[in-house]
Amino acid sequence: MTTGSIAHPPREKMAIDGARLLDRIERFAAIGRNATGGLDRVAFGDDDLRARAEFLREAAAAGLAGSVDAAGNILVRRPPGLARPDLPALLVGSHLDTVVNGGRLDGAYGVLVALEILQTVVEHGVELSYEPVAVVFANEEGARFPQPFWGSRALAGHLDELPAEPCDHDGAPLRGPLARAGGDLDRLATAAWPPGSVAAYLELHVEQGPVLEAGGERIGVVSDITGRTLLIAVVRGGAGHAGTTPMDLRCDPLAAACRMVLAIESLSREQRLCRVSTVGRLDVRPNSPNTIARDVTLTIDLRDGDPARLAGAEQAARDLVASIAAERGAEAEVSVGTRSGPAHADAGLMAAIAESAAELGHAHRTMPSGAGHDAQIISSIAPFGMIFVPSVGGVSHVPEEDTADADLIAGAEVLLHTALRL
Amino acid sequence: MTTGSIAHPPREKMAIDGARLLDRIERFAAIGRNATGGLDRVAFGDDDLRARAEFLREAAAAGLAGSVDAAGNILVRRPPGLARPDLPALLVGSHLDTVVNGGRLDGAYGVLVALEILQTVVEHGVELSYEPVAVVFANEEGARFPQPFWGSRALAGHLDELPAEPCDHDGAPLRGPLARAGGDLDRLATAAWPPGSVAAYLELHVEQGPVLEAGGERIGVVSDITGRTLLIAVVRGGAGHAGTTPMDLRCDPLAAACRMVLAIESLSREQRLCRVSTVGRLDVRPNSPNTIARDVTLTIDLRDGDPARLAGAEQAARDLVASIAAERGAEAEVSVGTRSGPAHADAGLMAAIAESAAELGHAHRTMPSGAGHDAQIISSIAPFGMIFVPSVGGVSHVPEEDTADADLIAGAEVLLHTALRL
Repeated sequence: MTTGSIAHPPREKMAIDGARLLDRIERFAAIGRNATGGLDRVAFGDDDLRARAEFLREAAAAGLAGSVDAAGNILVRRPPGLARPDLPALLVGSHLDTVVNGGRLDGAYGVLVALEILQTVVEHGVELSYEPVAVVFANEEGARFPQPFWGSRALAGHLDELPAEPCDHDGAPLRGPLARAGGDLDRLATAAWPPGSVAAYLELHVEQGPVLEAGGERIGVVSDITGRTLLIAVVRGGAGHAGTTPMDLRCDPLAAACRMVLAIESLSREQRLCRVSTVGRLDVRPNSPNTIARDVTLTIDLRDGDPARLAGAEQAARDLVASIAAERGAEAEVSVGTRSGPAHADAGLMAAIAESAAELGHAHRTMPSGAGHDAQIISSIAPFGMIFVPSVGGVSHVPEEDTADADLIAGAEVLLHTALRL
Repeated sequence: MTTGSIAHPPREKMAIDGARLLDRIERFAAIGRNATGGLDRVAFGDDDLRARAEFLREAAAAGLAGSVDAAGNILVRRPPGLARPDLPALLVGSHLDTVVNGGRLDGAYGVLVALEILQTVVEHGVELSYEPVAVVFANEEGARFPQPFWGSRALAGHLDELPAEPCDHDGAPLRGPLARAGGDLDRLATAAWPPGSVAAYLELHVEQGPVLEAGGERIGVVSDITGRTLLIAVVRGGAGHAGTTPMDLRCDPLAAACRMVLAIESLSREQRLCRVSTVGRLDVRPNSPNTIARDVTLTIDLRDGDPARLAGAEQAARDLVASIAAERGAEAEVSVGTRSGPAHADAGLMAAIAESAAELGHAHRTMPSGAGHDAQIISSIAPFGMIFVPSVGGVSHVPEEDTADADLIAGAEVLLHTALRL
């Protein structure tokens, strides 16, 4: 390791250590891997904590300084002596948590590249006009605790979007698991960064869709990120014995919920009120073969790049839940799980990404992101740029999620060169 | 306690100890009670084991001899000296396990009355022409291990209806939990009773439906028990990211499963192919708000008193699962969870029940049972008689399940007098 006083190679010649990066990706892919090969690294669960601890160890071994804020975000900086806390920050990051049975790259790729870039910058003694900070946002996915973008919301100071006592789907509080991760719910406000302290945010991620693979481009320059509204509907009927309760005396909330699932699918598929609409989670209680259900909870995930269309789809979803419940004599209640507005990437950062890709000889295309990312939350306090690499088969949130090694390295180098251009 | 050599009161004057019975019912209602007041005494779970141990303690304290067979059935007999193993058995029983979040009477009422009757017979030194045996059948409900009527099937020698290595819904084997309950999977055949050894089977149960309450009768004389076919359908589609997967590229198994749920409801409700049809359990994997489901499992519970109609409804259910899956491009597989044929009560036992009710001054009605009971399994090796008492509001398999104390005592006395008549 050297200090900034030693001359470093010109930007065009600088490169990350691809083998080191691939090795780290491989090792992190083993943390939380289940029997089917998928990852169950649900935020604040045991395996997420193991991955976070391992990330801090890797950072320390690389001579970097890691810390955890009150929201549980991991922040990694250059070591004292090299760090320049007086300069505005360039945040580079993503997340380590996964969905249930997710893939090895969604999130982890971005944070491991952020670590690699800090390490490369320190090793080459690069002088920068900003302070690079690698960030691992806590609970991006919201797989257990339904507060996705938890860490980025806290860092961006959006405390009003977070419940005072967040709980998981079963009502268990986040407070304890957050503390085990090094956070502190009572000091959450301290995780917010002061205005002007973040110069820019860069995030590298797998595309999670089929566009780059189909187009044969290695690099996606994200233009904007989809908006998302997640609603949670609870449908209540009358439980009873499946053998003794006559059909005409039943109020089966599962049957009502099933009509809702189909109507929600139709919101985008036939009515085209928003781009996509999904019920991915549905819980039946008591969920016993010979008992008519008592109540059912389902999630309604609506996405669109246009806030007005998203609002229209939400209203339509609320209306159909109410009308189906009424028709069936059931009770239904809809609450907002989370809302994240669409966000536009910074034109200057988009240009820097495109120029870096061109300089490195990688075909690229400008494209929207159909998935949500922490970048859209950070967009409220800083300009952001986001880079995609191709997803094999266009799939993500599944064990088969994959990206070619060459594409993983290409993405990392484009991110490095983009950072060096700023 | 006295022996048979001492004169006992005439049958008409004999009575059970109502206060003792109600006290026992109350105490057993606390074993496995959850925060909502429902019972989670799922077969072979910790609370079921506690209830079983408590039942054996009560029997011992009453001077009775308890044992557990290889299937985990509890058998309680008169103590050595009083017992007459040379006589054919009169089995009297029910079960202690419950559905998830079930009520305090379904099953427990029947076995606690069986215990009370044995105790009464011993205390009064009654001479009988048969050997009374109280039986607690293991896993009647099948709430965790989907082999309902497990214990009665083993006792009736229906080993061909039981899997060699039974597992729960998650694939965990029954072997270990059965051993903890005192059973032995490798010696299951020893639980079968030899032909001719059972003279008759009597079961007392809450109605679990609204008929007696509506009619104002205290006693139901069961004429026959419904047949039931439980199918398990697995629907497989393609998991993917809920934000990035276009609607026209999806194969969402949850949407397909929801169409199946509605079609299955319609089998009985509109098409009237069978009496009732229910999907009570539905499990989504991975069950994450922002992931399109990969696969869904649902149970299909079909009931009818006519075996031909039941078979027709099963075929219709299989056809609709296949056609909906095909339409949606999903894969579906249907297996049989359990089948129990309808069964007719013995005319002589029905008459004995009706006469006992009349003698005790209780209005009664002859009626079919819409719920399944161990009695229908035992019907293959012995004649059975079954007694119902009213269910408040007609509900069961819910925490609100209830029966008036006077009705509970009336049912017990009718059972005692029926037994004494034989």
